[in-house]
Amino acid sequence: MESFNGRLKSLIAKKKSCLCIGLDMDPKLLNTTKLEKLRDHSRLVIDATIDLAIAFKPNFAFFERWGSAGFSWLEEIVEYIGDDLITIADAKRGDIGNTALQYAHSVFSHFCFDSVTLNPYMGSDSIKPFLDYPGKGVFILCKTSNASSIQFQNLNLNKKLLYEKVVEMALDSNKNKNVGLVVGATAQEELKAIRKLAPELPLLIPGVGAQGGDLFKSVKTGNKNGAALISVSRGISFAGDLSKKAIRQEAKKYVEKMAEVLNG
Amino acid sequence: MESFNGRLKSLIAKKKSCLCIGLDMDPKLLNTTKLEKLRDHSRLVIDATIDLAIAFKPNFAFFERWGSAGFSWLEEIVEYIGDDLITIADAKRGDIGNTALQYAHSVFSHFCFDSVTLNPYMGSDSIKPFLDYPGKGVFILCKTSNASSIQFQNLNLNKKLLYEKVVEMALDSNKNKNVGLVVGATAQEELKAIRKLAPELPLLIPGVGAQGGDLFKSVKTGNKNGAALISVSRGISFAGDLSKKAIRQEAKKYVEKMAEVLNG
Repeated sequence: MESFNGRLKSLIAKKKSCLCIGLDMDPKLLNTTKLEKLRDHSRLVIDATIDLAIAFKPNFAFFERWGSAGFSWLEEIVEYIGDDLITIADAKRGDIGNTALQYAHSVFSHFCFDSVTLNPYMGSDSIKPFLDYPGKGVFILCKTSNASSIQFQNLNLNKKLLYEKVVEMALDSNKNKNVGLVVGATAQEELKAIRKLAPELPLLIPGVGAQGGDLFKSVKTGNKNGAALISVSRGISFAGDLSKKAIRQEAKKYVEKMAEVLNG
Repeated sequence: MESFNGRLKSLIAKKKSCLCIGLDMDPKLLNTTKLEKLRDHSRLVIDATIDLAIAFKPNFAFFERWGSAGFSWLEEIVEYIGDDLITIADAKRGDIGNTALQYAHSVFSHFCFDSVTLNPYMGSDSIKPFLDYPGKGVFILCKTSNASSIQFQNLNLNKKLLYEKVVEMALDSNKNKNVGLVVGATAQEELKAIRKLAPELPLLIPGVGAQGGDLFKSVKTGNKNGAALISVSRGISFAGDLSKKAIRQEAKKYVEKMAEVLNG
């Protein structure tokens, strides 16, 4: 079976796109209190962009807020997306071994996602249970896109920063070629440093769009050797008048800009 | 309204118990593949121990593995436990601000938990949205009970360890008296150090029982000034022949040992 990292790289090369669409289905942005309306909108976003995107990344928080009804919707979405694209469970899980086993079962066997985002704070035994699923992948939080990410991630440990230690763990864990890192587009300097430390690891790069990270630089640095997905959430899912046309148009703009860099 | 930390301290003083029962409903330990059987067992555990415990802590992974059906069961459990005890959502969430807002809505407004465990890796803005709910509390992962917790948490940052920086963030965040820390019973040295740095913060201490942490020392150090909950999961929930009697007996043993320390 093809490794997760290999599959991601092939898809990007084939489609000349590295667009990941974050499904952060915020009720406020749709001005609704009804799950049904958000469910319809999530299908509309997928329909409008499925040929342009490489990956869809449902953000678990926006489903969990509805409890069991939200999880039922999430089950439908993964099936609706189908097998041609990569699905990323943006769940940021991290727990001791026997609990991590259950989370791995949840995202890979129950929900059937292709990959998941994980939090490194508890160390390698919290990552390990996710690594043994053939064809599945993980993205470990390394340098995140939010302002307070500097609080711990950039702390200095005798010449190494904390996020650099996370890169080391990721490299050590990559025996099955299924480990990647989350690096925010809002941290270009760190992005370069991480690409240098881990030339081959896939990157998942959020933070362009609403958070203001640089798209061109992120595509270029990210796709130097390994593959990098650029994740855009509300910038596409809630574009313009929220119509299928407006959403598709916005996604197309991103993909055209990406192709400029990927082709050059 | 009473603060979360105040409520916890009063309950421990009143009941002379600091027992938190972790609901890690592992199908393997019940030798079943049926959610229905686990649901029945979770009610049996609650019935058997509700007068002895201070808190129940459902571990989200063991519910999420069943998808929407598992979340439906989790909704029932919180209601079944009722309002007299403290409920802890053991979810270890952590994400950027607008996502953290949704997770806070999920655990506090949808599921109606009293408190939640959080992961500090993304810094204070990932914690903040949880702090504004009156009467609710958070427990931030500080020094966890698993073997690989040393990998990052004990890294040295010019005379301070990473977990000590987390203690500082927790102290800074405690304006509403609703912030506590997770500290493993398997790390007694760190437990002492943390109690010294944060004499008043509530502690949630897992790792006695199956993981081998010391019960007496944990109760004593933990309850020196602030309050500390000792969390036991499978050691109680799957005790002996799995009968109500066996489970109650095991919980009683723990509470008697706790009372010795709490009374002395």
